[in-house]
Amino acid sequence: MSYVSPGGTYARDSRYLTTRITADGRDGFPVEPGRYRLVVSRACPWASRAIIVRRLLGLEDALPMAVAGPTHDERSWTFDLDPGGRDPVLGIERLQEAYFARDPGYDRGVTVPAIVDVPTGRVVTNDFPQMTIDLSLEWTAHHRAGAPALYPRELRPEIDSVDEAVYQDVNNGVYRAGFAGSQEAYEAAYARLFARLDRLTDRLAASRYLVGDTITEADVRLFTTLVRFDAVYHGHFKCNRRKLSEMPVLWSYARDLFQTPGFGDTVDFDHIKRHYYLVHRDINPTGIVPAGPDLSGWLAPHDRASLGGRPFGRGTPPGPVAPSEAVPAGHGPQPG
Amino acid sequence: MSYVSPGGTYARDSRYLTTRITADGRDGFPVEPGRYRLVVSRACPWASRAIIVRRLLGLEDALPMAVAGPTHDERSWTFDLDPGGRDPVLGIERLQEAYFARDPGYDRGVTVPAIVDVPTGRVVTNDFPQMTIDLSLEWTAHHRAGAPALYPRELRPEIDSVDEAVYQDVNNGVYRAGFAGSQEAYEAAYARLFARLDRLTDRLAASRYLVGDTITEADVRLFTTLVRFDAVYHGHFKCNRRKLSEMPVLWSYARDLFQTPGFGDTVDFDHIKRHYYLVHRDINPTGIVPAGPDLSGWLAPHDRASLGGRPFGRGTPPGPVAPSEAVPAGHGPQPG
Repeated sequence: MSYVSPGGTYARDSRYLTTRITADGRDGFPVEPGRYRLVVSRACPWASRAIIVRRLLGLEDALPMAVAGPTHDERSWTFDLDPGGRDPVLGIERLQEAYFARDPGYDRGVTVPAIVDVPTGRVVTNDFPQMTIDLSLEWTAHHRAGAPALYPRELRPEIDSVDEAVYQDVNNGVYRAGFAGSQEAYEAAYARLFARLDRLTDRLAASRYLVGDTITEADVRLFTTLVRFDAVYHGHFKCNRRKLSEMPVLWSYARDLFQTPGFGDTVDFDHIKRHYYLVHRDINPTGIVPAGPDLSGWLAPHDRASLGGRPFGRGTPPGPVAPSEAVPAGHGPQPG
Repeated sequence: MSYVSPGGTYARDSRYLTTRITADGRDGFPVEPGRYRLVVSRACPWASRAIIVRRLLGLEDALPMAVAGPTHDERSWTFDLDPGGRDPVLGIERLQEAYFARDPGYDRGVTVPAIVDVPTGRVVTNDFPQMTIDLSLEWTAHHRAGAPALYPRELRPEIDSVDEAVYQDVNNGVYRAGFAGSQEAYEAAYARLFARLDRLTDRLAASRYLVGDTITEADVRLFTTLVRFDAVYHGHFKCNRRKLSEMPVLWSYARDLFQTPGFGDTVDFDHIKRHYYLVHRDINPTGIVPAGPDLSGWLAPHDRASLGGRPFGRGTPPGPVAPSEAVPAGHGPQPG
């Protein structure tokens, strides 16, 4: 499978299935506890947004989760972690089957996160930017007591603005660097990435969180890239001006979130490393997975509390991870 | 050109041309100023040993130097930096020609450093471990006043012992990691490398230099790997437990040497990065050269002088680099 187009700039295929699951069911898919299944990979930064938001909001029971294995072939994600290699609820081996159930001629990316309608086995949506917003705004009837407001009305314009810049330059910027088909395309992506990280550093030097004084959707979206930075983007994608661990403000910010319930307890560094280094053979032909970096620093104390702010605003942290959803021991540092 | 043998462990071809240039000329090649030409690449760590030792000893006039370009094809090093693409003294385009002049059937590595007999155009030796020792012990009649004793008799057993461990685990260890043909071979090389770096850290925490209290051959040999560590070995060869810049003792030791006349003023980071990332296409198929890392830290102050020791013993530092041998501006930090 080819990720790099020689001579060119990497362009993400962003034609998603945009059907929405809403409180009023206007697209034919009303919010209904237990009806849908969130399919993720813990390797994938886009899916990790949904994993984190689901847990912060306490939607584990209302929206059960299927975890695909970290590696895949040209037919994409599989349920090879499950007994018999099948998701026990959907009964399928490959996520591709749920996309074909939706559209037999489906010819776009078989991506995670995807939400599948369990009764029909069909993918409803893989539109990840909308998905986490809808978990915050449409699934409110099923939020836990004390769930934080991750996308509060008064902050939306600022969150949207930060999200857009972070998406272009950071979340997707690391892919534009890593899958660049020319030196020029790579250097342009690298310059944009680090210029943006410099601006984010300025912003976060004086403020514990990106927008307002509590955790919002904007922090979730930046975190999922930062947590992968030293493990994969620095070496594999050549985003190597400095490691995250050499950028003190961002490193402390990321550690603060990592150590906050709902963030680090969802992170599987083993899946992250194996996915990137084993799947992208066109930039890592040997398939050898680096033994480093030393990740123990993620658990080191941070100094962010002195900046003030309340992580969950008027809400509370989520409780412990359900044992059935715990990241396996030995897959990297875990807070707690 | 293939550097990785799938399934296997990287094994360096160490069958060198072992003819020696000696004071007594017992191999037919007596030390004689101006007769020989040292062919190097500034990219190559083995050649860099010779570049540094030649300069520390002040052998620039007695043993002139030809600098090959940083990249090469399957026919190896070329003089593409020179006008017309030919070395002005040897009159050849490719170093390969001097190897074939020595032996028309030559079928081993066309490597640098190589010393060529100018009158015949034939390679005399490419035996890099012996070469720097001979510069110290056989070329003494042409050393500058104040040249240091890099291989003093009383320290030779200890230098040899350190050199052997550093060669196996560090100098060649990074190649065994980078060109490993299996996950197991890679992990074995990685473990040996970092275990050795830990032991060297212990040694250097209390001692400014590796052996005795002055710079010796042992420091030259460790330096040439350390100076490439963050620029190429960390990412390209997956030696990524930590960056050198994250290992305080070794990082300070390396900066101390870098800032010592004869070391950093020979280092061309542009050649280093372009060589590794452009030549080893089997581990970097895109040929994209990382824009990082930020190398400015090489010029930051170090704290090593407080450990005592005298860099040049009873000798003196070499003078400024001759303009004809200066590393071009823009090729990375230079001590000033």
